[in-house]
Amino acid sequence: MKAYLSRRYRICASHRLNVAAFSEEQNRLVFGKCNHPYGHGHNYTVEVTVSGQVDETTGMVCNLADLDGCVQTLLLDRFDHANLNRDPGFSRAVPTTENFCTLIFELLSGAFDRAALERVRVEETGNNFFELERKA
Amino acid sequence: MKAYLSRRYRICASHRLNVAAFSEEQNRLVFGKCNHPYGHGHNYTVEVTVSGQVDETTGMVCNLADLDGCVQTLLLDRFDHANLNRDPGFSRAVPTTENFCTLIFELLSGAFDRAALERVRVEETGNNFFELERKA
Amino acid sequence: MKAYLSRRYRICASHRLNVAAFSEEQNRLVFGKCNHPYGHGHNYTVEVTVSGQVDETTGMVCNLADLDGCVQTLLLDRFDHANLNRDPGFSRAVPTTENFCTLIFELLSGAFDRAALERVRVEETGNNFFELERKA
Amino acid sequence: MKAYLSRRYRICASHRLNVAAFSEEQNRLVFGKCNHPYGHGHNYTVEVTVSGQVDETTGMVCNLADLDGCVQTLLLDRFDHANLNRDPGFSRAVPTTENFCTLIFELLSGAFDRAALERVRVEETGNNFFELERKA
Amino acid sequence: MKAYLSRRYRICASHRLNVAAFSEEQNRLVFGKCNHPYGHGHNYTVEVTVSGQVDETTGMVCNLADLDGCVQTLLLDRFDHANLNRDPGFSRAVPTTENFCTLIFELLSGAFDRAALERVRVEETGNNFFELERKA
Amino acid sequence: MKAYLSRRYRICASHRLNVAAFSEEQNRLVFGKCNHPYGHGHNYTVEVTVSGQVDETTGMVCNLADLDGCVQTLLLDRFDHANLNRDPGFSRAVPTTENFCTLIFELLSGAFDRAALERVRVEETGNNFFELERKA
Repeated sequence: MKAYLSRRYRICASHRLNVAAFSEEQNRLVFGKCNHPYGHGHNYTVEVTVSGQVDETTGMVCNLADLDGCVQTLLLDRFDHANLNRDPGFSRAVPTTENFCTLIFELLSGAFDRAALERVRVEETGNNFFELERKA
Repeated sequence: MKAYLSRRYRICASHRLNVAAFSEEQNRLVFGKCNHPYGHGHNYTVEVTVSGQVDETTGMVCNLADLDGCVQTLLLDRFDHANLNRDPGFSRAVPTTENFCTLIFELLSGAFDRAALERVRVEETGNNFFELERKA
Repeated sequence: MKAYLSRRYRICASHRLNVAAFSEEQNRLVFGKCNHPYGHGHNYTVEVTVSGQVDETTGMVCNLADLDGCVQTLLLDRFDHANLNRDPGFSRAVPTTENFCTLIFELLSGAFDRAALERVRVEETGNNFFELERKA
Repeated sequence: MKAYLSRRYRICASHRLNVAAFSEEQNRLVFGKCNHPYGHGHNYTVEVTVSGQVDETTGMVCNLADLDGCVQTLLLDRFDHANLNRDPGFSRAVPTTENFCTLIFELLSGAFDRAALERVRVEETGNNFFELERKA
Repeated sequence: MKAYLSRRYRICASHRLNVAAFSEEQNRLVFGKCNHPYGHGHNYTVEVTVSGQVDETTGMVCNLADLDGCVQTLLLDRFDHANLNRDPGFSRAVPTTENFCTLIFELLSGAFDRAALERVRVEETGNNFFELERKA
Repeated sequence: MKAYLSRRYRICASHRLNVAAFSEEQNRLVFGKCNHPYGHGHNYTVEVTVSGQVDETTGMVCNLADLDGCVQTLLLDRFDHANLNRDPGFSRAVPTTENFCTLIFELLSGAFDRAALERVRVEETGNNFFELERKA
């Protein structure tokens, strides 16, 4: 059987969707109100899923305190209450949910070695989310 | 990596579960209170998941406005605030969540070509849902 | 201090908003898609709030099993998985959330005597609800 | 009995909490990470509650389409996907949830005359909200 | 206008409802499965509501960090991940939601002086909650 | 296409995480506040997912009443309002969410033969869950 452990974190951040190479009109057409000049924001929910063997003694896949510490350092300290457009990770990429999710997946990939990163889901609102999954 | 974009829509509809070929007693036995003679209803949540490459310039899998437009025309205009039993899609099939989900999957399959349809989930209540997934 | 105990119940029902004395056009204008000819439905949430003294021995305002029994008999058996338009309570009144809430308040008012009925809230969707409160 | 109708709307916006008259250190002390230099954002939920008589014919306190239209024009067109600090309503006031709620209450007060404005609740996150209520 | 600020906290605790003076049968009759001999537990949600003037400079009723600190010390350190029956506050009282809410109200009453305590709501499950409100 | 039917159940239970072979300090280090001496508790949500062919006549994968009956007997009667540490299934294993989920998967595996068990998800809180999935 495959075993997955998931944990949800919250990031309140602002962003603006805009491509420098596009005209104003093109940007408005492609990004709609997400292109509004001074930005807007979201309560993002980041769901991190890892997999691994359940330890026979402790009954745990990994220690949640370790996972929380890793996410705190790599994600929350950097993105919570921040403007995503100012982050080096978005110096060239537009901070869409897709790109935000990809960046988070990359940041966590090498960093947490007590269990394998399986999936990252970023919810921009309760009705809109993006997921990246490790290939089977 | 596999990349998935999901979006949730709401459909308020009524239905009655009844098989014409069954006796009244059989219908009551199989469908319970879902067989009540004058129907009842639900706030259905339809979650549509598509997959695709993240465009390098826009940072998007597909334009959400396009996806919303497609769902509006094919699903919401047809099923929202409707009686499912009166819909041609249920002229012979019972409007269970399973059949509703299958019909929605078929309607969206050919229709949205900017990203691949991966999964449709229909939630009848917060504690009850059905999903269809494209074969890997 | 005022003390309130609340409990939430679910009712899946269908209804159609239509006034016999109105023309077709008037009905469409007033009720919009809630006037669709064959009805539609909702997962209603009914929140019942009662007040009373906390019993010194049991630490309870009233026994929840008693309250549940009362709601089961008076509300769930009658309205769950039903078509509200067929209910005697709506023989002359339109089954709007407002009128449904009023009917529920009346039904519960005399019936549960172990605590005072303070408020009934009926949620038609997560974004739409109506409340009746006993005057202070 | 008192009768209340409530409706919930969503506003995705960014803001930064900062008082010009404060030193950098004071601002950081008072506002914490809400003072981060380039702002951050939220999915605000605005719950609007009105009261009134239930119309005997239509069974409604007011037409939801009218209320929605009023909120669209006065709130959503102005604040959704916007930077609150750039709004004239916050030219001198800090865009805290408290001040945002007060501004919304003022904007809606005179504007919707088919039912009386009773309460405005603004939720910044699921764990944090502010309410203003008309005096009894 | 009345102004209210609310904040939600989580407490995971166990309890058993049992009155020493009752017979086994009486306890089972009054408390049902909440009387099971070795206890059970809940994810309680505690919603604390305070009121006060919005400060003209900071735009805040009170500093949330102060409120959080007060709740951390008085409630979370004491009740989170605890067995309520072992708490001195329940040495004689049954740890029902009613009594838990009353105890929390008393603990917070004198303790937080930067805003007035208005209401405490304790949710035992999503369908069951108890509230205490300061008299108007 | 793959077809999945899911249903969510609630279990209020208490537990304590402690390994007899560990020292007090080790237990505190590994389990943190979940090691508190007298236990604590949660409102667990158990999501059961089964798969199968949609029956052409009834439009159902399986009868929900049958699935509910099976879950009632095997899970709810045994674990709801119980202390997990006292359950024979945890006589040697620590009652972590991982081990609880594994036990539930085993209990349901052979028991429900009208559809194939595909996945069990146990949510300890809204931010923390564990899943077991049948190998593809």
